Amino acid sequence: MGTKRLVILGSTGSIGTATLDLVADFPDLFEVVGLAAGRGGDALERQIRRFKPRVVSVSRTEDADRLRAACADLPVDILGGPDAAATVAAQGDGDLVVSAIVGAAGLVPTLAAIRAGKSIALANKETMVMAGALVTAEAARRGVSILPIDSEHSAIFQALSGQRAEDVRRLILTASGGPFWDVPRHGLDRVTREDALRHPNWSMGPKITVDSATLMNKGLEVIEAHWLFGMPADRIDVVIHRQSVVHSLVEYCDGSMLAQMGIPDMRGPIGYALAYPRRLPLRLPPLDLAARGALTFEPPDPERFPCLEYGYEALKTGGTAPAVLNAANEEAVAAFLDGRVEFLAIADTIERVLSRSCPGPATTLDDVLQADRWARAAAREVLGRSPAATLSLGDA
Amino acid sequence: MGTKRLVILGSTGSIGTATLDLVADFPDLFEVVGLAAGRGGDALERQIRRFKPRVVSVSRTEDADRLRAACADLPVDILGGPDAAATVAAQGDGDLVVSAIVGAAGLVPTLAAIRAGKSIALANKETMVMAGALVTAEAARRGVSILPIDSEHSAIFQALSGQRAEDVRRLILTASGGPFWDVPRHGLDRVTREDALRHPNWSMGPKITVDSATLMNKGLEVIEAHWLFGMPADRIDVVIHRQSVVHSLVEYCDGSMLAQMGIPDMRGPIGYALAYPRRLPLRLPPLDLAARGALTFEPPDPERFPCLEYGYEALKTGGTAPAVLNAANEEAVAAFLDGRVEFLAIADTIERVLSRSCPGPATTLDDVLQADRWARAAAREVLGRSPAATLSLGDA
Repeated sequence: MGTKRLVILGSTGSIGTATLDLVADFPDLFEVVGLAAGRGGDALERQIRRFKPRVVSVSRTEDADRLRAACADLPVDILGGPDAAATVAAQGDGDLVVSAIVGAAGLVPTLAAIRAGKSIALANKETMVMAGALVTAEAARRGVSILPIDSEHSAIFQALSGQRAEDVRRLILTASGGPFWDVPRHGLDRVTREDALRHPNWSMGPKITVDSATLMNKGLEVIEAHWLFGMPADRIDVVIHRQSVVHSLVEYCDGSMLAQMGIPDMRGPIGYALAYPRRLPLRLPPLDLAARGALTFEPPDPERFPCLEYGYEALKTGGTAPAVLNAANEEAVAAFLDGRVEFLAIADTIERVLSRSCPGPATTLDDVLQADRWARAAAREVLGRSPAATLSLGDA
Repeated sequence: MGTKRLVILGSTGSIGTATLDLVADFPDLFEVVGLAAGRGGDALERQIRRFKPRVVSVSRTEDADRLRAACADLPVDILGGPDAAATVAAQGDGDLVVSAIVGAAGLVPTLAAIRAGKSIALANKETMVMAGALVTAEAARRGVSILPIDSEHSAIFQALSGQRAEDVRRLILTASGGPFWDVPRHGLDRVTREDALRHPNWSMGPKITVDSATLMNKGLEVIEAHWLFGMPADRIDVVIHRQSVVHSLVEYCDGSMLAQMGIPDMRGPIGYALAYPRRLPLRLPPLDLAARGALTFEPPDPERFPCLEYGYEALKTGGTAPAVLNAANEEAVAAFLDGRVEFLAIADTIERVLSRSCPGPATTLDDVLQADRWARAAAREVLGRSPAATLSLGDA
């Protein structure tokens, strides 16, 4: 295979930097032609000097100006502003766009890439959660393939490979249970930001790590799985698997299951999406089952972790409901990470916003973005009345 | 797909009867055109009346005469004698030959089916153990596919599906450990025939159940995996997995593993081989991971169960060594099942026969059958000098 030309959206984040590590390891296979980052700090400048993209974007024009001056010796176009990432995503010479911007901000540039006919390696699950119907329809229309980077969806994608779609009975997403799986219900109002950021198995960014602690991450993944694999909600199950080595499973109509396994390291699923249909000879330690001890599986606990159910409910409601769910969660997690509200306020906020919302059809990007804006405003209102984190620690 | 015409070799055994159960469940998919059984008892007559094959064989001409009289009202040809199974296997109108005769006796009819260009669903691992080079060369020459029925090899076959052969790093066969995994070394000279026939997870015939107890089964499966999947001995590993729900795994060059899982029920792998490339909607209970508790994995124990190592050694020696190994094991297991020798005499006999043998090339069927005969004679001699089962129980 020749060199694959990559555009990386969210290049300074956790997935973005891991992707660039792989590019550095396989220089004959990959070339970076575009990068998009939120801010234009030193990390981005180092990436530009090392990987020599032709075009780079940052969110703010002032950051772009600064970066342009810093990189004046390099043959690179620096774009700035809210639409710049979409321009980089859709640019002419990219073969594969790695969509790794965190949160709702990833939707518009990813959709722009799809509309430009680019293959997508998708880490930004919000693209599918917010606008799954729209995105999958656009991708189908343009014959664009969307390769999952989320470890669970990569596992399912691998376990579906070479099998007939009509033989699939059920998708089973595994969930680590996060840092609070062993905390009783009454203990959850005492947990802190630092506790929530201590994920037992995976090293990820702060937003997704908090989502793992609430299990909202798994709720979002159920929605993502629905759109990626065309499977109805009642045929997508979740099982708690504390060791995070079985990354997910597919059950077939003959009772057979195929599971994808490995050590918890995002370079695995990233590498699979980058090099698909081949596999990269990654220098990851193999999974030594005999040395691991036991692999355990437990049912989810909707009592303590209701966010998973909210994901199923939003998917069943359809239309803009998943976009509302996602926006409410993003606002609540941001407030929690800022120390403005306590942990339990995240689920509480999502529930209140969902129950107040009147979901409509999500046929256009505008429908989706409008629902997103409405839900953020509603969430901020709820969050303003939530007990602050410091107070709750005091009176728990 | 139209009706697949099946020939079932070993129709009254454990795999044969399970195969016919599946045929009965899917009458639109399968039709039985030939059966071969060892003896012509009532079970075979019932199968003939129910499935209406056009041709049937039994090993002895006197059994054939009796059966012919009993089935005089049916349009069926009954053949008898040592070559009759091969005639049924190679007959004109079969699409797929299920090779499920137990032991070395399966080799000649399976090879006859391959030479007649029939696809094979292979439960008789001895075909590959004794004559893997010969059999795979013949199959390649005639474009014949060999679909594994052994649960481990079916698992690997499923986990290889849709993947690139050059990306495979390692095959990992799981082993239940058999009924004696928790018995200490000094306890193994007290175990009885009844103990050995009590397999913890799988319901199988007596020969293979004893092979599971010695782990010789896994040694034979390593050799079978080598020939089925073209993988060298040092890239085939074995891990003890007591629960027998992970049926085997494939590790790829990126550190990813694909595992096939399910409840331990032979209808799974049989159905997969019969209907390949589709899957049958089998009415097997699904594997409920959350209800199962833990899955465990341990390294093998060559100290207590040396037969696994004998399998690797014979594979590395090559030529007729695996045929010698298999013949010595068959003789020893038969003696153990007859109550003539104690459990530990099985491994001991294999080791002595292997160490005495001078393996040569196995390029023709005659080479293989001659090695088989030599090893049986050698094994019987060793077994004649082994302590009898009853004696050993007395003085243990």
